[in-house]
Amino acid sequence: MSLLTRTEHALSAHFDQAAGVGAPSRLVAAMRHAVFSGGARIRPQLCMAVATACGDDRPELTNAAAVALEFMHCASLVHDDMPAFDNADTRRGQPTVHKAFSEPLALLAGDGLIVMAYRVLLEAGAAHPDRLIRLMDNMTTGVGLPNGIVAGQAWECESSADLSQYQRAKTGALFVSATCAGALSCGHEPEPWAPLGSYLGEAYQVADDIRDVIADAASLGKPVGQDALLSRPSSAQALGLDGAIAHFDRLIEQAAESIPACSCRDMLRQLVQVEAERLVPKALCEGYFKTHPHTPMPSAPARQRLPH
Amino acid sequence: MSLLTRTEHALSAHFDQAAGVGAPSRLVAAMRHAVFSGGARIRPQLCMAVATACGDDRPELTNAAAVALEFMHCASLVHDDMPAFDNADTRRGQPTVHKAFSEPLALLAGDGLIVMAYRVLLEAGAAHPDRLIRLMDNMTTGVGLPNGIVAGQAWECESSADLSQYQRAKTGALFVSATCAGALSCGHEPEPWAPLGSYLGEAYQVADDIRDVIADAASLGKPVGQDALLSRPSSAQALGLDGAIAHFDRLIEQAAESIPACSCRDMLRQLVQVEAERLVPKALCEGYFKTHPHTPMPSAPARQRLPH
Repeated sequence: MSLLTRTEHALSAHFDQAAGVGAPSRLVAAMRHAVFSGGARIRPQLCMAVATACGDDRPELTNAAAVALEFMHCASLVHDDMPAFDNADTRRGQPTVHKAFSEPLALLAGDGLIVMAYRVLLEAGAAHPDRLIRLMDNMTTGVGLPNGIVAGQAWECESSADLSQYQRAKTGALFVSATCAGALSCGHEPEPWAPLGSYLGEAYQVADDIRDVIADAASLGKPVGQDALLSRPSSAQALGLDGAIAHFDRLIEQAAESIPACSCRDMLRQLVQVEAERLVPKALCEGYFKTHPHTPMPSAPARQRLPH
Repeated sequence: MSLLTRTEHALSAHFDQAAGVGAPSRLVAAMRHAVFSGGARIRPQLCMAVATACGDDRPELTNAAAVALEFMHCASLVHDDMPAFDNADTRRGQPTVHKAFSEPLALLAGDGLIVMAYRVLLEAGAAHPDRLIRLMDNMTTGVGLPNGIVAGQAWECESSADLSQYQRAKTGALFVSATCAGALSCGHEPEPWAPLGSYLGEAYQVADDIRDVIADAASLGKPVGQDALLSRPSSAQALGLDGAIAHFDRLIEQAAESIPACSCRDMLRQLVQVEAERLVPKALCEGYFKTHPHTPMPSAPARQRLPH
């Protein structure tokens, strides 16, 4: 079974179990829409891949940890898409939750998914209290204050932000939680796996910035050009498009190099390379430069002033 | 030290510790505004009171449990006040978080407080893993699906809702978590304490409905008449004002009667009575009936159709 298939099975099973019986049906439908409308599932796959490298002796706990992190990710997307932030009508080519349901339900669906993430861990981890507590701590660090994804998103509301700190928190934090969770679910120490998550997370954010410039809305599944429009910190704005692509390639290289010696090193390196090509397809870059021969953007300082 | 003083000290200490160092300053300020702008602190006091009745052998764990529940409560208020729901400009006589900061920061402050609630428990409970896990489970039940406060709020988005189920989830669930947490933090079984939370929570919601009709905005600290305006399920609408007040009195009686035999029974009964008078002051009711002699409202069926 591929890691993606394992992820989808685990997401379905845990969602149904954690939703329980008797919840308001539109809330459950909104949460389901948030989780099951596509998505690359990179965080749960990363968690499972690292767990495989660590022996995966409690696969049910690994699955729960992977699912919990994906629920957190989905919650953040639902809230980020709302009119108060990106005001996005589509995500992965489908209507966003507030468009398909309503703003109140999008707000509650996000809240509900955050809490459901903890529920999933609690249900799976009761037999392994030590591992459970460390997994909860690890997830909480990736999401909350001071440096988790909620803090990362909040840097957009400050009058100035350090681009690297913003990217590490907004995206990197949950990637680090994902690789560390893979180790923790097997009772291994997480630290050796943190750099893989960190480099890959930063690469992912840089890729997002690049694609916001060069992709078309149809292939991206959401509106493009939003960073410039919303004056958000962006690598493509700060380093120029060429610089951002070079930065991305270097981060992918560092991610691959950071993988600790283990029997699964080749598998993990391949996962990183496949993900890199999916994130920033070489053909897309070449196509863009062909049609936009004068586009190296002026570099801006990495520390940007943001308007309110 | 009174339970209120103990609560305020614990809230301050845990907030600072859990916020950590380096988080975006406006996010922290928005979260602080959400927590430290008044509030009766009834849930944490209830938790501490029950813990006192159970021996309170780990007061630091009791404090953390009480604080975590209050953070959850504050998170729900921040999100409920937002334009997508109540669109309230004031709360406790002060600007709501989205008015004082912004909608994006209100959204993130709520998310941040939910996660911070878990952080607080994790920090205090590491030395008592069994109690910690049960406290987390108990809090998650009070907030999440299928019957926690997020589900309760979501009943407002359904086309029809059972008034009692709505009230039990929207308010009662976290009161039940509060009384149960007091027992769990001492390693006691929570079940004997659940009815106290349940009756008091329902009474609190009924009181809210009553005050939405008879209070003035100045004394309530938020807009009045919102239930009728927003067509929300309301005891005062369903039972008439007289009926709602009688229902409230009966719930308070049941709450007091439900308190298990223990050395603190008198103290707890007094807490319930003081809270009842604070929630629905006798003088306020009498004053209202004097100035509105023809106000017994027409009773409506308890199962109400709600518009979208």
